[in-house]
Amino acid sequence: MQGPDEFGLISRLFAPLAAGHAGALTLTDDCALFDGPNGAQWAVTADAMVAGVHFFPDDPPDLIARKLVRVNLSDLAAMGAVPKFILMTCAFPKGTDMAWLDCYAAGLKDDCQEFSVVLIGGDTVSTPGPLTLSLTALGELPAGSALLRSSARSGQQIWVSGTIGDGAFGLLAAKGQGGLDPRHHDALLDRYRLPRPRTTLGPALRSLASAAMDVSDGLVADLGHICDCSDLGAEIEAARVPLSDAASAAIAQGWGQGMITALTGGDDYEILFTAAPNLSEQIVQLGQRLNLRLTPIGRIIAGKGVRVIDTQGQDLALERAGYNHFAPGSAL
Amino acid sequence: MQGPDEFGLISRLFAPLAAGHAGALTLTDDCALFDGPNGAQWAVTADAMVAGVHFFPDDPPDLIARKLVRVNLSDLAAMGAVPKFILMTCAFPKGTDMAWLDCYAAGLKDDCQEFSVVLIGGDTVSTPGPLTLSLTALGELPAGSALLRSSARSGQQIWVSGTIGDGAFGLLAAKGQGGLDPRHHDALLDRYRLPRPRTTLGPALRSLASAAMDVSDGLVADLGHICDCSDLGAEIEAARVPLSDAASAAIAQGWGQGMITALTGGDDYEILFTAAPNLSEQIVQLGQRLNLRLTPIGRIIAGKGVRVIDTQGQDLALERAGYNHFAPGSAL
Repeated sequence: MQGPDEFGLISRLFAPLAAGHAGALTLTDDCALFDGPNGAQWAVTADAMVAGVHFFPDDPPDLIARKLVRVNLSDLAAMGAVPKFILMTCAFPKGTDMAWLDCYAAGLKDDCQEFSVVLIGGDTVSTPGPLTLSLTALGELPAGSALLRSSARSGQQIWVSGTIGDGAFGLLAAKGQGGLDPRHHDALLDRYRLPRPRTTLGPALRSLASAAMDVSDGLVADLGHICDCSDLGAEIEAARVPLSDAASAAIAQGWGQGMITALTGGDDYEILFTAAPNLSEQIVQLGQRLNLRLTPIGRIIAGKGVRVIDTQGQDLALERAGYNHFAPGSAL
Repeated sequence: MQGPDEFGLISRLFAPLAAGHAGALTLTDDCALFDGPNGAQWAVTADAMVAGVHFFPDDPPDLIARKLVRVNLSDLAAMGAVPKFILMTCAFPKGTDMAWLDCYAAGLKDDCQEFSVVLIGGDTVSTPGPLTLSLTALGELPAGSALLRSSARSGQQIWVSGTIGDGAFGLLAAKGQGGLDPRHHDALLDRYRLPRPRTTLGPALRSLASAAMDVSDGLVADLGHICDCSDLGAEIEAARVPLSDAASAAIAQGWGQGMITALTGGDDYEILFTAAPNLSEQIVQLGQRLNLRLTPIGRIIAGKGVRVIDTQGQDLALERAGYNHFAPGSAL
């Protein structure tokens, strides 16, 4: 018998419990939606993080707090919602000291200020196990304007914000992989520890993008989710996928599986979106206005699944499309 | 240096981050409030549970899921909100098998049906540690009608729903304490494992109660929270605190510290509320209509803190007012 698979679990066990509310989007999107005041909607999302799985137990506590906030704000951004509130539950290991807690709270405060969110609730308990954190984030958007995974259309362009692969190479850096210029090494580590949720881009895309989601499980796996939800296929060109100088240096150094690691690794927290080809000029202008790279990497096609074309025009074979929490060896 | 205290932690580290939203109620109430559609408000709460701390690792999985739902719905009920949505994050230990997960999901389904709530989101991750669960619950109520902890007034009566102490004696039963009639033993165990959130009572109290909260940390400690938030004191008569036959039997058997355990133990999930004395007849009638015991146990007075009067008219000395997650020996 196969072990449990994260997506299988959710769709088999939990999605039936979401049937009573259309805004739950069958638990297949970044957020759920429910009614807000004066024609607005609330978008809500919740993510958990465990020491030793999602971050290293000895990571700086302020960065752990900020990553927790940011991975959730990234989900809001992917729906086009403006972040407003967070609730946090913390299971702190016995013996967690005040200096650690102060640093953790300072990181939380920094990000509440940076992203204009308010902590409105939560719970603090102790655990005999590893530090385990859960955050629920609420954001606002005009009713009917949410960017869903299911709204891609055949012939549309596929875009991605920022650069891809830094999270995956940053994880390798955190695990001690060496040989890079320290500047690149630190840049990758920083991207892994401190994602940049695209909270300004997301709302700005409401009038431009059709489908959107954030890249957390890996570019190819996440694009696969858009394809599944939209009942379409996609092809992307590996050579067009935007890389940072640091990620390019890691690939040149032979880190991981090179470009395949960039395409399939997780933790990028960029926005992947689709848009009609005639909007490409407006999208480029938006990127310039936000000072954020927005890159077309392929297109939505009829069919099923994601095809990645390498520089020779051949299909790139990908063994492992993305992160699965229940796969063997999925701890750090 | 003292170790961290749950309430101290929250007020010192996290409450400052709640200052930007009045509806966060400085993180001192059962839920936070934010705007809903058409003059409604949303109430939101989040609670975490850890195996070995909040439940036994070998408790039936369906009851673990249902307790997780119910402790949160109890918070909504205490504000007068009607439960609508839940989001759940689960950190499942590696090797959790499908039979366990199926049973867990079945319990969740039962309670979604029983309480008419819909699961709209969440996250499923793996952990090298104990099963760790977090749930966020959202409920609806008319704007301005929430029952706050801070609204008690001097001279008002203090009421409690149901019976008190079953949770604490149920925990002793779960830990193997014996000597009770099996019927009483099972009744206490059941109350510990499967709280009865007062989701019908809560909304009905909006027009009757002034302050309210749910009894989760222990009657005396929780009444202390109402006193703190309302800047008043309280006195209750131990003899008037309603006990089930099973709890009375446990006290007669010498379980724990007897009545002191009932007064200070946690996990009751009843509603503690205050109301003007001239409403007592209406409150009694409400209890009859809901087939739920509602008992006046004392009154709000000027001053500070909770005074418990025993049957001899003397002050009862209470060493430990309630549950503190960071107290030594606070695991099960």
